[in-house]
Amino acid sequence: MCGIVAVSGNSEAAQLCFLGLYSLQHRGQEAAGIASFDRATGQSHRVRKPGLVSDAIQAKDIAELPGDVAVAHIRYSTAGGAGLKNAQPIRESYRGGPIALVHNGNLTNANLLRDQLFNQGALFQSTIDSEAIVHLIARSRGATPDEQITEALSQLEGAYCVLITVGDTLYAARDPYGYRPLVIGALPGGGLMLASETCALDIAGARYVRDVEPGEFIRIRGGEIETVSRLPQMVAESQPCIFELVYFARPDTQLWGYTVDRARRAFGRRLAQEQGAPGDIVISVPDSANSAAVGYSEQSGIPFELGLIRNHYVGRTFITPTQAGRDFKVRMKFSPVREVLSGKRVVVVDDSLVRGTTSRALVNMLREAGATQVHLRLASPPVRWPCFYGIDMPTREELIASDKTVEEIRAFLGVDSLGYLSPDGMLECVADEGETYCTACFTGDYRAPLVDAQQGFAMSSHC
Amino acid sequence: MCGIVAVSGNSEAAQLCFLGLYSLQHRGQEAAGIASFDRATGQSHRVRKPGLVSDAIQAKDIAELPGDVAVAHIRYSTAGGAGLKNAQPIRESYRGGPIALVHNGNLTNANLLRDQLFNQGALFQSTIDSEAIVHLIARSRGATPDEQITEALSQLEGAYCVLITVGDTLYAARDPYGYRPLVIGALPGGGLMLASETCALDIAGARYVRDVEPGEFIRIRGGEIETVSRLPQMVAESQPCIFELVYFARPDTQLWGYTVDRARRAFGRRLAQEQGAPGDIVISVPDSANSAAVGYSEQSGIPFELGLIRNHYVGRTFITPTQAGRDFKVRMKFSPVREVLSGKRVVVVDDSLVRGTTSRALVNMLREAGATQVHLRLASPPVRWPCFYGIDMPTREELIASDKTVEEIRAFLGVDSLGYLSPDGMLECVADEGETYCTACFTGDYRAPLVDAQQGFAMSSHC
Amino acid sequence: MCGIVAVSGNSEAAQLCFLGLYSLQHRGQEAAGIASFDRATGQSHRVRKPGLVSDAIQAKDIAELPGDVAVAHIRYSTAGGAGLKNAQPIRESYRGGPIALVHNGNLTNANLLRDQLFNQGALFQSTIDSEAIVHLIARSRGATPDEQITEALSQLEGAYCVLITVGDTLYAARDPYGYRPLVIGALPGGGLMLASETCALDIAGARYVRDVEPGEFIRIRGGEIETVSRLPQMVAESQPCIFELVYFARPDTQLWGYTVDRARRAFGRRLAQEQGAPGDIVISVPDSANSAAVGYSEQSGIPFELGLIRNHYVGRTFITPTQAGRDFKVRMKFSPVREVLSGKRVVVVDDSLVRGTTSRALVNMLREAGATQVHLRLASPPVRWPCFYGIDMPTREELIASDKTVEEIRAFLGVDSLGYLSPDGMLECVADEGETYCTACFTGDYRAPLVDAQQGFAMSSHC
Amino acid sequence: MCGIVAVSGNSEAAQLCFLGLYSLQHRGQEAAGIASFDRATGQSHRVRKPGLVSDAIQAKDIAELPGDVAVAHIRYSTAGGAGLKNAQPIRESYRGGPIALVHNGNLTNANLLRDQLFNQGALFQSTIDSEAIVHLIARSRGATPDEQITEALSQLEGAYCVLITVGDTLYAARDPYGYRPLVIGALPGGGLMLASETCALDIAGARYVRDVEPGEFIRIRGGEIETVSRLPQMVAESQPCIFELVYFARPDTQLWGYTVDRARRAFGRRLAQEQGAPGDIVISVPDSANSAAVGYSEQSGIPFELGLIRNHYVGRTFITPTQAGRDFKVRMKFSPVREVLSGKRVVVVDDSLVRGTTSRALVNMLREAGATQVHLRLASPPVRWPCFYGIDMPTREELIASDKTVEEIRAFLGVDSLGYLSPDGMLECVADEGETYCTACFTGDYRAPLVDAQQGFAMSSHC
Ligand SMILES: Nc1ncnc2c1ncn2[C@@H]1O[C@H](COP(=O)(O)OP(=O)(O)O)[C@@H](O)[C@H]1O
Ligand SMILES: Nc1ncnc2c1ncn2[C@@H]1O[C@H](COP(=O)(O)OP(=O)(O)O)[C@@H](O)[C@H]1O
Ligand SMILES: Nc1ncnc2c1ncn2[C@@H]1O[C@H](COP(=O)(O)OP(=O)(O)O)[C@@H](O)[C@H]1O
Ligand SMILES: Nc1ncnc2c1ncn2[C@@H]1O[C@H](COP(=O)(O)OP(=O)(O)O)[C@@H](O)[C@H]1O
Ligand code: SF4
Ligand code: SF4
Ligand code: SF4
Ligand code: SF4
Ligand SMILES: [Mg+2]
Ligand SMILES: [Mg+2]
Ligand SMILES: [Mg+2]
Ligand SMILES: [Mg+2]
Repeated sequence: MCGIVAVSGNSEAAQLCFLGLYSLQHRGQEAAGIASFDRATGQSHRVRKPGLVSDAIQAKDIAELPGDVAVAHIRYSTAGGAGLKNAQPIRESYRGGPIALVHNGNLTNANLLRDQLFNQGALFQSTIDSEAIVHLIARSRGATPDEQITEALSQLEGAYCVLITVGDTLYAARDPYGYRPLVIGALPGGGLMLASETCALDIAGARYVRDVEPGEFIRIRGGEIETVSRLPQMVAESQPCIFELVYFARPDTQLWGYTVDRARRAFGRRLAQEQGAPGDIVISVPDSANSAAVGYSEQSGIPFELGLIRNHYVGRTFITPTQAGRDFKVRMKFSPVREVLSGKRVVVVDDSLVRGTTSRALVNMLREAGATQVHLRLASPPVRWPCFYGIDMPTREELIASDKTVEEIRAFLGVDSLGYLSPDGMLECVADEGETYCTACFTGDYRAPLVDAQQGFAMSSHC
Repeated sequence: MCGIVAVSGNSEAAQLCFLGLYSLQHRGQEAAGIASFDRATGQSHRVRKPGLVSDAIQAKDIAELPGDVAVAHIRYSTAGGAGLKNAQPIRESYRGGPIALVHNGNLTNANLLRDQLFNQGALFQSTIDSEAIVHLIARSRGATPDEQITEALSQLEGAYCVLITVGDTLYAARDPYGYRPLVIGALPGGGLMLASETCALDIAGARYVRDVEPGEFIRIRGGEIETVSRLPQMVAESQPCIFELVYFARPDTQLWGYTVDRARRAFGRRLAQEQGAPGDIVISVPDSANSAAVGYSEQSGIPFELGLIRNHYVGRTFITPTQAGRDFKVRMKFSPVREVLSGKRVVVVDDSLVRGTTSRALVNMLREAGATQVHLRLASPPVRWPCFYGIDMPTREELIASDKTVEEIRAFLGVDSLGYLSPDGMLECVADEGETYCTACFTGDYRAPLVDAQQGFAMSSHC
Repeated sequence: MCGIVAVSGNSEAAQLCFLGLYSLQHRGQEAAGIASFDRATGQSHRVRKPGLVSDAIQAKDIAELPGDVAVAHIRYSTAGGAGLKNAQPIRESYRGGPIALVHNGNLTNANLLRDQLFNQGALFQSTIDSEAIVHLIARSRGATPDEQITEALSQLEGAYCVLITVGDTLYAARDPYGYRPLVIGALPGGGLMLASETCALDIAGARYVRDVEPGEFIRIRGGEIETVSRLPQMVAESQPCIFELVYFARPDTQLWGYTVDRARRAFGRRLAQEQGAPGDIVISVPDSANSAAVGYSEQSGIPFELGLIRNHYVGRTFITPTQAGRDFKVRMKFSPVREVLSGKRVVVVDDSLVRGTTSRALVNMLREAGATQVHLRLASPPVRWPCFYGIDMPTREELIASDKTVEEIRAFLGVDSLGYLSPDGMLECVADEGETYCTACFTGDYRAPLVDAQQGFAMSSHC
Repeated sequence: MCGIVAVSGNSEAAQLCFLGLYSLQHRGQEAAGIASFDRATGQSHRVRKPGLVSDAIQAKDIAELPGDVAVAHIRYSTAGGAGLKNAQPIRESYRGGPIALVHNGNLTNANLLRDQLFNQGALFQSTIDSEAIVHLIARSRGATPDEQITEALSQLEGAYCVLITVGDTLYAARDPYGYRPLVIGALPGGGLMLASETCALDIAGARYVRDVEPGEFIRIRGGEIETVSRLPQMVAESQPCIFELVYFARPDTQLWGYTVDRARRAFGRRLAQEQGAPGDIVISVPDSANSAAVGYSEQSGIPFELGLIRNHYVGRTFITPTQAGRDFKVRMKFSPVREVLSGKRVVVVDDSLVRGTTSRALVNMLREAGATQVHLRLASPPVRWPCFYGIDMPTREELIASDKTVEEIRAFLGVDSLGYLSPDGMLECVADEGETYCTACFTGDYRAPLVDAQQGFAMSSHC
């Protein structure tokens, strides 16, 4: 998943990147990193640390990141737990000078590229896509960074937003499909900020200027934005990720033309129309389903209640007593409010269902707290296919809906009834201007070709 | 404020205390500590660390806390930033053996006791009440810990819940007024758990057994609870702290006979009756005002909206850009959802108003996000007096309601209208069985005498 | 063992204490601590850390130790590994204000005092003698610190040098036997420094003024030294510890009227007279035996060689390969120079022999490096008795000479011959002015009564 | 300077590397690193940390370095303080698999190579020579690692010993001039160890087998050593660094056919013959000049004394009091023994003189301690030229002898007389078999061409 930020033309570049990362924390909690370039000394600097932004990056780190241009990254946890060597920014020197790069998305030809680069004598430190991109830039025969990066981008397939500094110039690019978001804002103290979500602009007090367009490659220097080149369009319909609206982005973010909270509210209302439920109360699985649950309540007329308390202080690691009992992890995050639930037929609204294990434990907890019936309603369709465009998801085998019917899933979860939002219902909620979306994880309709798979390589799936 | 936990008769005593502290995290974020006693070696052990429980206490710390009896404490931040020397548990050796003690509350004769002890040749390491209590125990001429602690307790005035281990015996006591809560639960794996709130029992899977009664001093050993003595009753009406219901306790906690969420819902409904507002939407200042806001919406019929997003990852310290602008701290914690607020007359419900500075910044933020009117409604009466019974509050001068009229406060906050719940309204919501409460911070009616002040000492005000 | 330092009347008090500790590092490597008093705020401050001084105390610690008076301590490693709670300075508040105390030596009635204090209701945090001393001061009925400390000192038996601050007044005292050294110096930047050894004065550029006399109790304030009281003399002959000259003090220190290096040189020469050896070369066990070995070579005419290299970087903990082989620890500290040793009859001079295990490993290493004969010569008599006056030694059972003849020890060590300096020989080397010494560890002649043992308590044996 | 170690064919490979580094600590104190390869998983692992080996590498680090082959490096402090990114081992993946490399020495065409690689699209993380070597290997068109490394080595100029793992195969090579030492030993538990000095073999209990020859490139696998190729000889006379004997290597190391201590002893004796002095005593600047000083005393008949004590616990950083006075740094490391020096004409023997600033402070200290005359004798010729073959030295400007006569240096240092060992005298001491040496820093006779300088690049000068 991951999130990215950049600042150009502001003497507090690293500090503002820190703020941006902080507001994008929901996009990744494994590690945070910032790289800056200092014109005064011609030196680039980098800090990468594991953990949450506000733990990882301290004032003394910021002090080691001078300069008025910086890129930053927040990393989602990776299966392999590859540690810091897979954290970003990538920072190297090449003949063009110091280069730093952050990447959000997932290349569908990453392993093919890697293989080709290996054969050309490249050295790799990590297993992340970003490193291959930097190699392509360094190996380009182009005369200028503009040309070198253009050439490199033309070799990428799949989903990416990249932010690159070469010396004191900032570059930004977004893949031609437009899978992941990337916005530009104007900082109050001068200079520009780019980020994955508008909530990063807000925290820094930056005014939203525009999106980086699908396929656009821009250069920023001295406060000026110039479009360097446009990558050829690959598909007729752009493919912004609908899952960003469903679950991933923050409710206050403005995305694909909608405020996330409003979109979710609409999903919830539509869900109530499509999938009514014989309940006494509606509760949310806080906080990601709050908007949808309020929408469901509104539409259905069933009163909204706070039946689950979300712990404010969920730590990364737990000391699990041996007598912990099952459902322990869910109990560390959520607490049922007995008096609200007791004796009630409860309609539980959640945003989506992936593996189903957490929901199963939650349902169990609700019943123990006295719910007489549990009706689960999901504000998105069944997730049947893994995402190869930058949202970390389990493999097909682990996706509960990949090979189970709704009835089988209902039985597995132990709920009295189960209802999903229909694909069309979902799309209609966010098609005011006839927008198109990627919905591959729901439908299997992958538009950017899965090159690695076609060439016999494993598909990579992390940022 | 602070929270306390103890476990007796379970080989995972320290681990279960960790869990209990974790669920009481809202009662204090400055420091956490656990002390255990290991019968096998006759040794006591203690760990105290700054920070959140799940950062502070690690698996390796638990490994250094063997034994089947333990007491634990979570510390609220103190003005003086006194560091770890003021963290609990207190752990010492006296002629009765190793003793460990945790305390929640505030003694109103702490400084007088301290002065007397100094004159008797006592040494002090900290400035906390708990240390004086341990001195009183050690200096008692009683022959047994039962007698020594009884004698010590009889010299205390004010609010306290204490949990004490002497060797492998656990003691618990609650002041005769009953200001702070203390509950007993039975652990599924055997043994008993005591804690400030029932949510600590829940996380450990413990079954609620009963409260420790006001004035009760009990001894726990081998799974048996015995009442050692009863302290003389001081006032006719018990004085459970109503502010625990208003703000401090967790919504899922069962307290003074009510579920906190239900009590707050009732406050919210009553507030709507007493203080209607010409609004288009009702929003909560999340999460402490969520229950009251939903109640307000329910009663008033004005729709409930999620107008403010609460950041899930509020860190302790921030790197503040110099260009941060005012209201920076509030922006790190809350983000407005523009599309929800824009063009709306917004009724904002909060639980209580203490200093008013955060609310003022928040109101400003709502207006910048497009709210055309802001009507603030508080689900409790004006806080006019400091608490000397264990809830950290600013001095009188800093309490905005201590010397300002409602109109003056309204003007200060910059809201279009301001409405408080009435004292009677509040009390009637939680008087099903004719319960009585301390309401001193609202009314100035201090029942436990402020001995220190009467004797010319400063009043202490922290746990 | 331990070492102590104090500074009064210099605004860099803590910094100068740091320097003093640094030069006393050989007296203890387990932990270091400094406490200061800041007149400006009336606050005392303390830092205690495990490890070597220059690792433990950092610039930021010094910044937290403002004030122009400070006491400091360096701790020798303790068997029990009691961690920081047994580290010094002790720092408490009593009715006289903030008090800090450091102690070098060992009380022979420590456990009796502790028992009495327990019965009077005292609380203990540690098991060190210093804490009992502070209790005695606080419990004294004396009206002033002068009287309180005098009364406390009169109850102590055994060996002690103490440095105490009460508010901004510095006190110093030395036991009437004079077991441990304590010197006073004048700092170049103003103010006075007190320390265990003159090498601490040297590093700070301080000029030696005089010793604190046995039984003297002084007060220092505003640069003035005043003798508050004199403790009654207990024995006719003072008892400065001869083992400080033999092994413990640093060669450049001036002690008991001698430069340590010169005294050791004399021991070495006398040893050569008493215990000749048929060797080709003389080598030292570096560095503590260097002076004695050079003296032995000088007197015997056998050439001095560097046969053993002492590693400059002996760390605290080692990662021991399972294939380490015996003698591993000795190999980490010393390396033999093969070409020097090979084919030679080697006379090895060491300062003293305590357990014998290190020497045994060393002898083995020398033989493997080609020595044809190994003749061990010790520049002190057999250590037969434990010290109860402040030098950490193993129990009697572990002292190899406590129950073995010289021939048995020789056989155990595997040397070709073994020779000890005679008690008279040792004393004659350092009796220019008819000085008397404690020699109890060699002779069993304990002058300060072993009160604890007499009263049925265990003897404590650490600082 | 730096030191390197490798182990092959022993399941405790990382642990034994740790031991080796520990005994090579004098070759570098800035950082330590180990990389291992684990056949079981096909994974390589690396740990790099700042500081001394025994602080930097802990048991938990070793646990993260599984496998039976490992390479290790110890880094000398660099002017630029480049931090960990310049620490070794270099560890990357290339098409041949995981590769790790450590390097001791200095390439004289490093910057030229780097420039060429940049132009071919290479990315660099650091500024160290080792990274260029790995690039050359990866870019070689050779089919096997044997060929790839041979091709890479053929492009290097200057001084190097390299240890490389590709998968589980260990490679070692030494430049054709033979500037730096590299020895092979057989481990008692099986497998081979390679290291910069024999003292690393000794601590691991390994038996010396042979040197890696100048220009030799070997492969080690399954306990077998095979010579892969021989690099063409560049000069008729090999160029082992004589400064290793003079100062750098440890006294117990066997080097260029001599034990270092014996060589230094001979230098000292020869120095006494060439440069007599009217002294009462001879003292060493401990410990590097100990052997030479004893030799000087032996030859001259002037008695050897311990006039300077070297502090055992010299920390990395100091808290310097503002009143520290000049010569502070020297006082932290050395302490004069007044009684030894006072009233004496002192002959001070040191191994070499580079900048002269430390010696000047030392001379001052000796005079303050009472020395009436100070005669400085150096057991090597004037250092007039910087080393470009792997010994970190100041620039020409900072070398005191580069532009000053002996008399000018004498005056600068403030000594009564000054005498250097002659170049011929030095060489004759270590020419039993007609050995030849590099003496460029004394004579300016650089045999390996300074390619970078010739091509207009800066000369690099660190490992
Ligand atoms: N305060 C909030 N209120 C409502 N939804 C939120 C809030 N914070 C985050 N979210 C939504 O929940 C998603 C997950 O947020 P996160 O903080 O990672 O919680 P979780 O631990 O439940 O995954 C976010 O991507 C966002 O859509
Ligand atoms: N998940 C939740 N939902 C609703 N109220 C909560 C929740 N968590 C805590 N609270 C209430 O908010 C109060 C303050 O909680 P805390 O986590 O400290 O937040 P804050 O930082 O806003 O003070 C708690 O004492 C409790 O009453
Ligand atoms: N540089 C030195 N030269 C000679 N003797 C020393 C030196 N440093 C310390 N000593 C002596 O050795 C004793 C032990 O010193 P220490 O540094 O602890 O070494 P060890 O580890 O051998 O005990 C000191 O108390 C002192 O008498
Ligand atoms: N114990 C020792 N005795 C004699 N010489 C030594 C010893 N240890 C190191 N040396 C020599 O001194 C040189 C510098 O060693 P090092 O420990 O770095 O001390 P310094 O801090 O004086 O440079 C080493 O390279 C070696 O030649
Ligand atoms: S597959 Fe799903 S998660 Fe991935 S980009 Fe498409 S909609 Fe988004
Ligand atoms: S004064 Fe207020 S906060 Fe304090 S105990 Fe009474 S009701 Fe609670
Ligand atoms: S017993 Fe030995 S070590 Fe102890 S004081 Fe006496 S001489 Fe010193
Ligand atoms: S120049 Fe000097 S230090 Fe460098 S290799 Fe030659 S002899 Fe050694
Ligand atoms: Mg969720
Ligand atoms: Mg709140
Ligand atoms: Mg020794
Ligand atoms: Mg030297």
